[in-house]
Amino acid sequence: MNEEELTSDFMDERENLNEVLMKYAGKNIKRFFNIDTNAYREGALPVKTKEMLGLVASTVLRCDDCIEYHLIRCEEVGVSDEEFQEVMSIALVVGGSITIPHLRRAFAKWDKRRS
Amino acid sequence: MNEEELTSDFMDERENLNEVLMKYAGKNIKRFFNIDTNAYREGALPVKTKEMLGLVASTVLRCDDCIEYHLIRCEEVGVSDEEFQEVMSIALVVGGSITIPHLRRAFAKWDKRRS
Amino acid sequence: MNEEELTSDFMDERENLNEVLMKYAGKNIKRFFNIDTNAYREGALPVKTKEMLGLVASTVLRCDDCIEYHLIRCEEVGVSDEEFQEVMSIALVVGGSITIPHLRRAFAKWDKRRS
Amino acid sequence: MNEEELTSDFMDERENLNEVLMKYAGKNIKRFFNIDTNAYREGALPVKTKEMLGLVASTVLRCDDCIEYHLIRCEEVGVSDEEFQEVMSIALVVGGSITIPHLRRAFAKWDKRRS
Amino acid sequence: MNEEELTSDFMDERENLNEVLMKYAGKNIKRFFNIDTNAYREGALPVKTKEMLGLVASTVLRCDDCIEYHLIRCEEVGVSDEEFQEVMSIALVVGGSITIPHLRRAFAKWDKRRS
Amino acid sequence: MNEEELTSDFMDERENLNEVLMKYAGKNIKRFFNIDTNAYREGALPVKTKEMLGLVASTVLRCDDCIEYHLIRCEEVGVSDEEFQEVMSIALVVGGSITIPHLRRAFAKWDKRRS
Repeated sequence: MNEEELTSDFMDERENLNEVLMKYAGKNIKRFFNIDTNAYREGALPVKTKEMLGLVASTVLRCDDCIEYHLIRCEEVGVSDEEFQEVMSIALVVGGSITIPHLRRAFAKWDKRRS
Repeated sequence: MNEEELTSDFMDERENLNEVLMKYAGKNIKRFFNIDTNAYREGALPVKTKEMLGLVASTVLRCDDCIEYHLIRCEEVGVSDEEFQEVMSIALVVGGSITIPHLRRAFAKWDKRRS
Repeated sequence: MNEEELTSDFMDERENLNEVLMKYAGKNIKRFFNIDTNAYREGALPVKTKEMLGLVASTVLRCDDCIEYHLIRCEEVGVSDEEFQEVMSIALVVGGSITIPHLRRAFAKWDKRRS
Repeated sequence: MNEEELTSDFMDERENLNEVLMKYAGKNIKRFFNIDTNAYREGALPVKTKEMLGLVASTVLRCDDCIEYHLIRCEEVGVSDEEFQEVMSIALVVGGSITIPHLRRAFAKWDKRRS
Repeated sequence: MNEEELTSDFMDERENLNEVLMKYAGKNIKRFFNIDTNAYREGALPVKTKEMLGLVASTVLRCDDCIEYHLIRCEEVGVSDEEFQEVMSIALVVGGSITIPHLRRAFAKWDKRRS
Repeated sequence: MNEEELTSDFMDERENLNEVLMKYAGKNIKRFFNIDTNAYREGALPVKTKEMLGLVASTVLRCDDCIEYHLIRCEEVGVSDEEFQEVMSIALVVGGSITIPHLRRAFAKWDKRRS
């Protein structure tokens, strides 16, 4: 699979599950999802910085799906290999060896997208 | 698969693993499992409230198996769609977007049971 | 100090700090605070249940300020001693002995309000 | 203050708060406290190993009161300076730099007891 | 107190505790502290971005001392009010309302430094 | 599959992913991995104790891959069934019922290796 297919597989599954969730969601959940989208929009900080913030937060909290989403977004907005590994090195130092299995999976996904 | 089969698949797997665990477990682990059962028994609070407490705690701590167990129990004791989504909205607000992948999977399981 | 003074001390400090926060907060933070208020409003679930959900979530996530807030609200909306200890027993079982220091402080605050 | 006074101050405060808690606690909480005591009793593993296990678990979960309790117990049962710092180095590597403020406070307490 | 005094109070206390820690620390802890320093050095990413990454990671993991350290560093390297609140809004959305008490204290410290 | 095959499957997968990670890793990540290896080397504490410390830390932090790694190492260095269940009972008491799904999987893996 090429990079575009990798992205759309993950994003499609995500979209499908979101639809089920929204079938039941009340106003509070819907509003939360809006804020979640808005928080990563360009502001005083550029989108690229915000996506790296999302990536490091997802990694120290050890959420594979969240890591994958921000990893895809990071690549889309131009984060380089070297920048990516620096974000992950901060996550590793702050979060400790308990994050390593998530780092392994994150670098494997990054590698697939970059090759 | 219908709802009964969904439940028993999950519960059977859980039961099988518990048996292996109990083969090795000493007195402290066994007693812990007893307390874990007793904590959700009817008391000053009805079972339904206690299962919702278990569900929200499992969701903010992001444990899919624990969520699934309490979600099944919630439905068995009469939690409605609207009540379920209100519990999950509190979990989302307290626990943040990092809980969203767990919410997606929880609503997908809830939806399968309700349709 | 009587119960009313205890409450207003904590709530005043909280209000003062919120004001500083709001001086800097952009739209996303402000909207988050709105959702946070709305999530505990009466809906399919009564306020009392929602406050107990907030209490158990705060306890397993081990946030003393959040515990204190929901503990005050629980008492205001009529949670009894027995109901309070049942909520805390679920938090203890789910969250483990690591929650005990928070339980100690929570019961001490509860006790001051009730005597 | 000498070491004995340091210990008894912390332990007295802990005892006082436990008494308040036990005034409200039902059977499940009481049983949990029993298991919590029993888990650290001599078994296949000696008490010293178990206290070091309690210390590392408390440190990666970042609970100062729990760390202090197990640190006192570790010293009482003969953990040496070098063993103590090895336990803490594993906690630091597993838990990351986010544990450092807790390590600082733990080493300060250890140092007071040892000098 | 002016900003310089605020900074040096916190940094002095930190330094004193580090000295005690280093009295006991073996090679692994010492090397960890070196990596912890290096991770925030200029690389492919500028220091300012790295400090914001440290801030958001510290906030979602809810460590007040870590937040304070990175908040001071952020201000020293030129993070603006608006950039600061955008970092914190991402932390709030990712980490949920459980981070709010930490946000309150962080904005209060930021405000003291900026006025 | 026999025990040796079970081990090498897990360890091979781990090794392969580490290679990808190391393709991108800078000096900080590489040094972290070195410390991570060194922390479990014989010192004042024997390897067996250190592996049990790693196991309990991994379990309360609920990382299946980390648990599996230390579980394999524990068995290799002579931890007995009874010692294993005592480590896990401390993890369960400290970390609460939220660790139970991880305990189930850990005991199942232990059981496969021991039969």
